[in-house]
Amino acid sequence: MSGHLAVVGLGPGDARWLTPEAGAWLAAADAVYGYGAYLLRVPEREGQARHASDNREEGARAAAALRHAAQGAKVAIVSGGDPGVFAMAAAVCAEIEAGPDAWRALDLAIVPGITAMLAVAARAGAPLGHDFCALSLSDNLKPWELIERRLDAAATAGFVIALYNPISRARPWQLGAALERLRRHLPAATPVVFGRAVGRTDEGVAVTTLGDADPAAADMATLIIVGSRETRIVARPDGAPLVYTPRAASGAST
Amino acid sequence: MSGHLAVVGLGPGDARWLTPEAGAWLAAADAVYGYGAYLLRVPEREGQARHASDNREEGARAAAALRHAAQGAKVAIVSGGDPGVFAMAAAVCAEIEAGPDAWRALDLAIVPGITAMLAVAARAGAPLGHDFCALSLSDNLKPWELIERRLDAAATAGFVIALYNPISRARPWQLGAALERLRRHLPAATPVVFGRAVGRTDEGVAVTTLGDADPAAADMATLIIVGSRETRIVARPDGAPLVYTPRAASGAST
Repeated sequence: MSGHLAVVGLGPGDARWLTPEAGAWLAAADAVYGYGAYLLRVPEREGQARHASDNREEGARAAAALRHAAQGAKVAIVSGGDPGVFAMAAAVCAEIEAGPDAWRALDLAIVPGITAMLAVAARAGAPLGHDFCALSLSDNLKPWELIERRLDAAATAGFVIALYNPISRARPWQLGAALERLRRHLPAATPVVFGRAVGRTDEGVAVTTLGDADPAAADMATLIIVGSRETRIVARPDGAPLVYTPRAASGAST
Repeated sequence: MSGHLAVVGLGPGDARWLTPEAGAWLAAADAVYGYGAYLLRVPEREGQARHASDNREEGARAAAALRHAAQGAKVAIVSGGDPGVFAMAAAVCAEIEAGPDAWRALDLAIVPGITAMLAVAARAGAPLGHDFCALSLSDNLKPWELIERRLDAAATAGFVIALYNPISRARPWQLGAALERLRRHLPAATPVVFGRAVGRTDEGVAVTTLGDADPAAADMATLIIVGSRETRIVARPDGAPLVYTPRAASGAST
């Protein structure tokens, strides 16, 4: 009986972003838990059980995986991107805190992955090249007023802002409201990057400005990066412009 | 003559964190540019030239690599961690913007990697499980007053804070001043993680609190994560405590 639980980041969709460490944990697992779309990205292995669950059942999924590992199985839970960023690692920790003592004694590994903002930033240039923040626009787990306060704080202090979970069928207006809020603090010319399904075959990356940014261009698979006053756009003759935030900041205009 | 420049993230030190995409770009390169300690981590390949430069010469290194690629060579520049986070990608973009037109036409790939805060977070649990920011404490490239303003904004708005470049021989007092600043806003019991050389053989991860955090425990290879008011510590019988920030936030106390 020496089970373990590995919380594994798959990266954002391209198998070339799956780290060797993540691949090794997946290969060693007797059972893999996760959202169905992520399980499809785990290489098949004979005798390995798959337990798919809905995207909104993180707590129940974490508890099921912990129970299974506590019985002595080698268990993996998968997350897209990095498991520590708006994903399964926090859910697993919360279940361990609330659960039986045996869960605290379990062999637990959190296995990092490329999180979406790093992949989108790489496609666009280097928009996260200076101080930045990552903020989830989902108000399922926090009040909208808190999100607004954080948008205000980040924009006025000069952080570049990566917006996770910008929009969904159940949350149709939040992204528009967030962009409107940011327009109070930042010039219309501030660069904005929409990165959709980066690393997948249906990838799309678009560079726009805060003045022109259209919430309708985003869906659940989109990660948005809103620049600071220092973020620049460099036109290129043969392709997409580069967006980058210089490493140096004067602080004068923020 | 079809050169390219790839700006490649090596991850934070463990070869198992080097993505297959990064490995492929390194294998394809005629020449690799980088800080000497990072070049040592690139697998040897016969006929591949190595160009080591000092840690503080990012601009000159980027320009040299761009010149080389513009001559038709397949060139890679390496960064530890992710090249887009306080690293080479922004330096390359800045040189492209300032350089000859030919550099804008170059085939450029930014190749993401696991950045240090994700690796340190994974070792500790899930401290970045909710909204967070990444802030460099180096005042070489921005005024200290701006750093203080960002610390104030991040802490009062409830962001978890990852501190990059916390300390160096030339910047001995900044980390202490930053922690002192954060103590104005956050309780002494706020969890703090010091992650040193994560992924290397001399790795060390320590969990402490804002009240007890000692700047002398950090060096140039350390990444520090300061929790929010919501961040929790879960004791474990057989090892290090878990540190995590719940996905849900009330916003009441921030």
